[in-house]
Amino acid sequence: MSDSVQIIHVNTDPAYDVTVGSGLLRRCGEQLAAVLGQCHAAVIADSTVAPLYLDTVAESLRTAGFTVSTCIYPAGEEHKNLTTLSEILETLAQQQLTRSDCVVALGGGVCGDMSGFAAGCYLRGIRYVQLPTTLLSAVDSSVGGKTAIDLKAGKNLAGVFLQPAAVLCDTDCLATLTPHTFADGAAEAIKTGVLSSRELFDDIAAGALRENPAEIIARCIAFKGRVVEEDPLDNGIRRTLNLGHTVGHAIEKCANFTISHGHAVAIGMVVMAKAAEKLGWCQEPCSSEIAKVLQQYDLPTATDFSAAQLANAAASDKKRRGSHISVVVPESIGRCVMRKVAVSELETIFAAGLEA
Amino acid sequence: MSDSVQIIHVNTDPAYDVTVGSGLLRRCGEQLAAVLGQCHAAVIADSTVAPLYLDTVAESLRTAGFTVSTCIYPAGEEHKNLTTLSEILETLAQQQLTRSDCVVALGGGVCGDMSGFAAGCYLRGIRYVQLPTTLLSAVDSSVGGKTAIDLKAGKNLAGVFLQPAAVLCDTDCLATLTPHTFADGAAEAIKTGVLSSRELFDDIAAGALRENPAEIIARCIAFKGRVVEEDPLDNGIRRTLNLGHTVGHAIEKCANFTISHGHAVAIGMVVMAKAAEKLGWCQEPCSSEIAKVLQQYDLPTATDFSAAQLANAAASDKKRRGSHISVVVPESIGRCVMRKVAVSELETIFAAGLEA
Repeated sequence: MSDSVQIIHVNTDPAYDVTVGSGLLRRCGEQLAAVLGQCHAAVIADSTVAPLYLDTVAESLRTAGFTVSTCIYPAGEEHKNLTTLSEILETLAQQQLTRSDCVVALGGGVCGDMSGFAAGCYLRGIRYVQLPTTLLSAVDSSVGGKTAIDLKAGKNLAGVFLQPAAVLCDTDCLATLTPHTFADGAAEAIKTGVLSSRELFDDIAAGALRENPAEIIARCIAFKGRVVEEDPLDNGIRRTLNLGHTVGHAIEKCANFTISHGHAVAIGMVVMAKAAEKLGWCQEPCSSEIAKVLQQYDLPTATDFSAAQLANAAASDKKRRGSHISVVVPESIGRCVMRKVAVSELETIFAAGLEA
Repeated sequence: MSDSVQIIHVNTDPAYDVTVGSGLLRRCGEQLAAVLGQCHAAVIADSTVAPLYLDTVAESLRTAGFTVSTCIYPAGEEHKNLTTLSEILETLAQQQLTRSDCVVALGGGVCGDMSGFAAGCYLRGIRYVQLPTTLLSAVDSSVGGKTAIDLKAGKNLAGVFLQPAAVLCDTDCLATLTPHTFADGAAEAIKTGVLSSRELFDDIAAGALRENPAEIIARCIAFKGRVVEEDPLDNGIRRTLNLGHTVGHAIEKCANFTISHGHAVAIGMVVMAKAAEKLGWCQEPCSSEIAKVLQQYDLPTATDFSAAQLANAAASDKKRRGSHISVVVPESIGRCVMRKVAVSELETIFAAGLEA
């Protein structure tokens, strides 16, 4: 792979660059020093990612003049909770990080979400950078400043908004992903195609995500960056990024989180696309086309949970405001809209989406 | 007492009014409905405050059309931690509060700090209001949007900045305070005098805080509000509000938090005022004048901890940035400045302040 990189500027407050390319982890120190200045960097990684990349990152940071501490927590979605957050915060305090220092999130979505939350509340907020190592975190969660942990009542129920100071997405990391983890990220990339562009969707359908992932990642991030710039606090247009997520989160919850996020979102997109067709909400039927691309990337498109089960789970979704909730509906490939629906209507909508 | 009220507008983002006067708790519902609209309000109080005021507040909120939930946690500074925060967050989730709902912090500084933090990270931030019931929270912590919990390594090490949507300070609550708790708040009021105004300082010295607390509270809040408007995120002028706090926090830590905040800050102010005199940093010696007023309000002015012990404790203060820390130095009554000093100088400075 070449060492050429693509840079996407995200003009939020603060503004930052997302760099996508090969070989970025081994030269991260130099690049981050230019953004952060030399400071104390606490690198946070889980027990799967740490053996793969932590030494490389720590060495590059030290060479560039950073003081480096590390914090390793147990891998697994079930550790994205207040207990692990608490351990990370206590570690940052023991390591005496100050307000001029920085957290480095090295890993997938769980790591980025939780490390970002720790950075956002340690000393009422210090800077953090994202070094995404999975396709899902590369195309989606590392950009935009949504941080979170799960509560017992549901996913991502506590967190803060804090934009990272930089995102370095080293595409070499994709080589170490399992097919299942790659597929999780593919679901979010396909979602971006459905949301933003027939051209991006068709390129992914033609295999570009496997053949040239850096280019597809950069296009996904560029789209997300524009949405986040317009609505950093998720009060409007940004909520369209939740395409497939109302159903997806409900599936994850009903399955007690034995179905992974990307796989659940894949099903959620198909359910909402089908519902849109049945209920007359879309311009062009697109559910079968979406399902076909998802299957190409080894993703599921159906669930055994009932509409009632999913509606019950979705009723506690954090996207709910009072008695209503916004769902995202694909009108055609490249164009989705939000619809505010009563929580009491969800079961009917989901039932339409689950019909054969 | 009359039902006349004073209103101080704080022009932050968001802006809000602080209302000070008698009888505010029993009519809080009407006033909060005007600010928040009718929504689901989760009232958070500790086990000391709940029996005193929770029914009054809940009834007023219900009468005004709010749906009301409550969350009671054990009283005591030692519960201002991640465990209690976690319980509050899980309770808010169980009660299914949505993004359009609101947290009501009913109590002293611990309650406001912790409830504000819970509101600031539940669903990545919902609104909260402060109903301070102690003098300390009335004159200081309920205004300005600093929320926090303690970590094992120190006080207030995790939190977020989130301005309240409203503050209602019912001065009738002062009648239920112990003399010790009243004195805690008096220390922060006296601090405000030293920081802002010879006139306020002299009025407090003349007994106004006991005779007409509403008026002194309103003047303290008006000063703090102006500082917070100028520097909401504590990057500059706001840090002068930490007068007495670097030493104060160190004393609290050395005493394993058996000395309360206001009492520790009282000692801290005298230590820094004396240090300023000895080191030639002040225009007019004021340490004995400050000590005299503190003693009038039954506050301590000396400590048995050594300069080395205090300096060691202060080295992990969150006000530290890299190898330096800002300390606040009184130059005269009504005028304080910040000095950036090396962490390695702290022991010498404290030693000067501790000399007889």
